[in-house]
Amino acid sequence: MLAKFAAEFIGTALLVATVVGSGAMAQSLTQDIGIQLLINTISTVFSLGLLIYLFAGLSGSHFNPLVSISEFIGKRLSGKSLALYISAQFSGGVLGTLLANQMFEKGTLVASTKVREGSSIWLGEIVATAGLLLIIELIRIQKLQAAAIVITSWIGAAYFFTSSTSFANPAVTFARAWTDTFAGIAPESVPLFIVFQILGATIGVLTARLFVATKKESSLV
Amino acid sequence: MLAKFAAEFIGTALLVATVVGSGAMAQSLTQDIGIQLLINTISTVFSLGLLIYLFAGLSGSHFNPLVSISEFIGKRLSGKSLALYISAQFSGGVLGTLLANQMFEKGTLVASTKVREGSSIWLGEIVATAGLLLIIELIRIQKLQAAAIVITSWIGAAYFFTSSTSFANPAVTFARAWTDTFAGIAPESVPLFIVFQILGATIGVLTARLFVATKKESSLV
Amino acid sequence: MLAKFAAEFIGTALLVATVVGSGAMAQSLTQDIGIQLLINTISTVFSLGLLIYLFAGLSGSHFNPLVSISEFIGKRLSGKSLALYISAQFSGGVLGTLLANQMFEKGTLVASTKVREGSSIWLGEIVATAGLLLIIELIRIQKLQAAAIVITSWIGAAYFFTSSTSFANPAVTFARAWTDTFAGIAPESVPLFIVFQILGATIGVLTARLFVATKKESSLV
Amino acid sequence: MLAKFAAEFIGTALLVATVVGSGAMAQSLTQDIGIQLLINTISTVFSLGLLIYLFAGLSGSHFNPLVSISEFIGKRLSGKSLALYISAQFSGGVLGTLLANQMFEKGTLVASTKVREGSSIWLGEIVATAGLLLIIELIRIQKLQAAAIVITSWIGAAYFFTSSTSFANPAVTFARAWTDTFAGIAPESVPLFIVFQILGATIGVLTARLFVATKKESSLV
Repeated sequence: MLAKFAAEFIGTALLVATVVGSGAMAQSLTQDIGIQLLINTISTVFSLGLLIYLFAGLSGSHFNPLVSISEFIGKRLSGKSLALYISAQFSGGVLGTLLANQMFEKGTLVASTKVREGSSIWLGEIVATAGLLLIIELIRIQKLQAAAIVITSWIGAAYFFTSSTSFANPAVTFARAWTDTFAGIAPESVPLFIVFQILGATIGVLTARLFVATKKESSLV
Repeated sequence: MLAKFAAEFIGTALLVATVVGSGAMAQSLTQDIGIQLLINTISTVFSLGLLIYLFAGLSGSHFNPLVSISEFIGKRLSGKSLALYISAQFSGGVLGTLLANQMFEKGTLVASTKVREGSSIWLGEIVATAGLLLIIELIRIQKLQAAAIVITSWIGAAYFFTSSTSFANPAVTFARAWTDTFAGIAPESVPLFIVFQILGATIGVLTARLFVATKKESSLV
Repeated sequence: MLAKFAAEFIGTALLVATVVGSGAMAQSLTQDIGIQLLINTISTVFSLGLLIYLFAGLSGSHFNPLVSISEFIGKRLSGKSLALYISAQFSGGVLGTLLANQMFEKGTLVASTKVREGSSIWLGEIVATAGLLLIIELIRIQKLQAAAIVITSWIGAAYFFTSSTSFANPAVTFARAWTDTFAGIAPESVPLFIVFQILGATIGVLTARLFVATKKESSLV
Repeated sequence: MLAKFAAEFIGTALLVATVVGSGAMAQSLTQDIGIQLLINTISTVFSLGLLIYLFAGLSGSHFNPLVSISEFIGKRLSGKSLALYISAQFSGGVLGTLLANQMFEKGTLVASTKVREGSSIWLGEIVATAGLLLIIELIRIQKLQAAAIVITSWIGAAYFFTSSTSFANPAVTFARAWTDTFAGIAPESVPLFIVFQILGATIGVLTARLFVATKKESSLV
């Protein structure tokens, strides 16, 4: 169990350190917000892809409470493991923010002042999280090999095409509340983000059922 | 059949949402049109690649009426399936535009004012679509594995090197008529785009015959 | 033989159309030369990678007279095939320039006015071509699978780190002389570029011998 | 042994030539430092990835004294080989700087004036090197296949998210002291960089032990 906890803890910490750190770096290098988001996305894509691949055999590379909960509901993760995973994800995420803040001299943990709200933003989170869970379910149902690349590609796309820049992860959202930099989110915006992420995740998992049914049906034929 | 329809519908919807959404996002972030197209392309590449990979085993990941028609002519798709695929692609595409418009507060469905016309632009569409169909045929003839990466690479290249930025898809072209943003195309420009896409597709499929003949010949030796 | 000629002809044409076309597109979108080269490189990387992969089983995906000559010297290509390959590469390359010029309304074939000369630039071509041939030889000697990705990665890196932006290909160099755009090279600069490319190729192939010897030696042990 | 030396020498030379050369190129093309670092990173990622893949079967593709020392401590590399590898890495690295300087007319070997120091920067080097060695160990322990992509992804991410832009390699750090360009580091900043790299490497290797223990344990079950 220690290895599973360590994998989720280190994985989420490095993921958040990447998101927050590359945002702070980008802000220090250029005034162009398009380039800032490019840098933030490219760095995140590299990091997320390698972390999913590296820890897949150790913890399953969730790094996201919604993924762990979905596995728990599907009876592929025990209740005890679920608690362990979620605590590793939240604590790892905060460590990641702390590391990034320290590397870029942005204090220890500082509440973000970047309010993110509005129905169009929340719709962005629904789309981002629904897509993420739909993809994860379709990978599982079809037993596809390239999970690390596919999931990372979704985040790489959604950073740019969803209005919220795709948080899609309660632990990462919470962690990003404690940095007053490019990737931050004001603590007061966090609860609704998580609510819409849960809604999106539910839509994603239910949509995937369409394909499960068909698979079963065709295996009867 | 429901799963096939759903795969084509969801795939085309997410593809169009990516193209339109990332264009709108890019416009809001930077004045530099080069960076806008970079963001638009990178987001589309990630999305298209993962969608082709994810739905390949479910519907064959056409997301494009010209691909479905080519499969129908080659007797690899029934007439009934063709009708189903094309209706899924057009309706899914429009849903994608709707989603992107809503996420970026650009109205529900708004006719684009971006006129795209002229012989050099149309030549771009011929090249883009001819290349796309040639590639798809060469993948099929040679039974190559990396279809998702190869097709996506073509679109990634053609976004930049064709004068039309490579629409190459009637359903996506139609869907992009209903957003007045970066990726839009005025409704009056759509019919000729589709005409030249059909011409390009025909050239691509015929060019691929050069290689089919040879394959047969060498298998006789 | 027709299929081999067609593969080299179409492959080189699309490669040059990408290089020239994306350069012209980039120039029309942004004033920042860094972004222009980014767009030019990304488009070329996508195109080169897919073309090598797609035509590998048909012609071996040379698209470059130096590669064909190296195969001829190594007795893996006949004299007749060599003549055929080289004529396909030069004629295909010029067609590619023609296509790009037409798509971006830059005339039919127009001599470039972009003089590229000087010892530092020529050193760039030596490094770029030596690396290219060394890589191709190491792939062959070790029978590595990911040739398309490895060769494309070299060009992707060398576009930025060699002072000449890495032409490394006489057919492509010649073709790029007939466009007065971003990717052009003045006709009077072409002969010396080719001389230094041949020098670089020779260095690359000879360097690879270091590793052949060792492989043989260790297979005796 | 000659082939192993040549592999480490050529690999490190080309890696450093890429890092230094693409930095010099970027500086000459754009004023935007964000775009400069994008160009520098993309070029390095392509180069590092292909070099690791290409020389893996010849020398193990270390290109980094810390990796060689870690292999020596783990008794997977002899003392004699260690001396050979490290001398190849340092001499190759300096040749790389020399090549890049010559290509961009920046003198032969010129001491950098770019002082890089401060606790936040050093923390960046600790994170970058700890992550690198942790990843390498996890690849070895789990016998993962995609080493070239995973290691390269880490560097691609860390270029942007660590405050030091991730040197993480004493031989490359030393080599970069001899160019007064974008990628340079003042000679007086080198010793402490190496100290913190050693610290980071130690942390990375020790962290990986968490997962070794578990693997052994679970194989007993």
